[in-house]
Amino acid sequence: MLKLKLIGVGKTKEKWLHDGMNEYIKRLKSSVQIEAMWAKDDAQLMEWTQKENHYLCMDPSGQTFTSEEFSLFLMRQWEARGSRLTMVIGGAEGLKPELKQRGVLISLSPLTFTHQITRLVLIEQIYRAIEIDKGSLYHK
Amino acid sequence: MLKLKLIGVGKTKEKWLHDGMNEYIKRLKSSVQIEAMWAKDDAQLMEWTQKENHYLCMDPSGQTFTSEEFSLFLMRQWEARGSRLTMVIGGAEGLKPELKQRGVLISLSPLTFTHQITRLVLIEQIYRAIEIDKGSLYHK
Repeated sequence: MLKLKLIGVGKTKEKWLHDGMNEYIKRLKSSVQIEAMWAKDDAQLMEWTQKENHYLCMDPSGQTFTSEEFSLFLMRQWEARGSRLTMVIGGAEGLKPELKQRGVLISLSPLTFTHQITRLVLIEQIYRAIEIDKGSLYHK
Repeated sequence: MLKLKLIGVGKTKEKWLHDGMNEYIKRLKSSVQIEAMWAKDDAQLMEWTQKENHYLCMDPSGQTFTSEEFSLFLMRQWEARGSRLTMVIGGAEGLKPELKQRGVLISLSPLTFTHQITRLVLIEQIYRAIEIDKGSLYHK
């Protein structure tokens, strides 16, 4: 079973975002065990990430991928890390430089999304990455 | 008042996506009048777009932007087109080549999103583009 720890700032505020994320978390249930941790502020986010040996940071300046490339990238990350992976999403102000320095920066788009929409887009891409790896019809 | 016609295939199925889009359509109300038209299939989408003199197509292979660039691009498009703009989002299979040939291809990300999530991400970026143009604090 693959494991994914998602760390961000602030609860998922909007009901529609919460429902959207849950839709994909449910679909991922049989392949990825997801633990979502929402820090109360940037200081707590920093504290939590400092305990992580390795993490990916969502940042518009990070490496961009096609969905096929992202699938390959994720699978290799999980393989290299004993099936465990941590991803960090900043708050409304983005991620602090100290935090970014220790992480691997990846980007969902050169566009800036709200940190809440980032969660939804990311989780759908993780589901898509798994389906691409399985060779299913979800991603044609 | 700026006008935007959004053309896509299929109703917005998920309630959470519908609610998310409505959130931004509501916020845009005072600056952009949005008309969303969901075709029943690709043939009807083709029929509708053939009536348009000019349109933007959402396609992963299109031009990519930062949110600031997208704001400038959109404002110039509206300016050049008498404040009217049409955007086309394909169905699950993407857009037909004949349709893409006549349009200007723009991309939200090199990643592939579901056509339903594309609607949400696009509408938030349009709201962001307007706020950037106004110089508001939404996009810092």
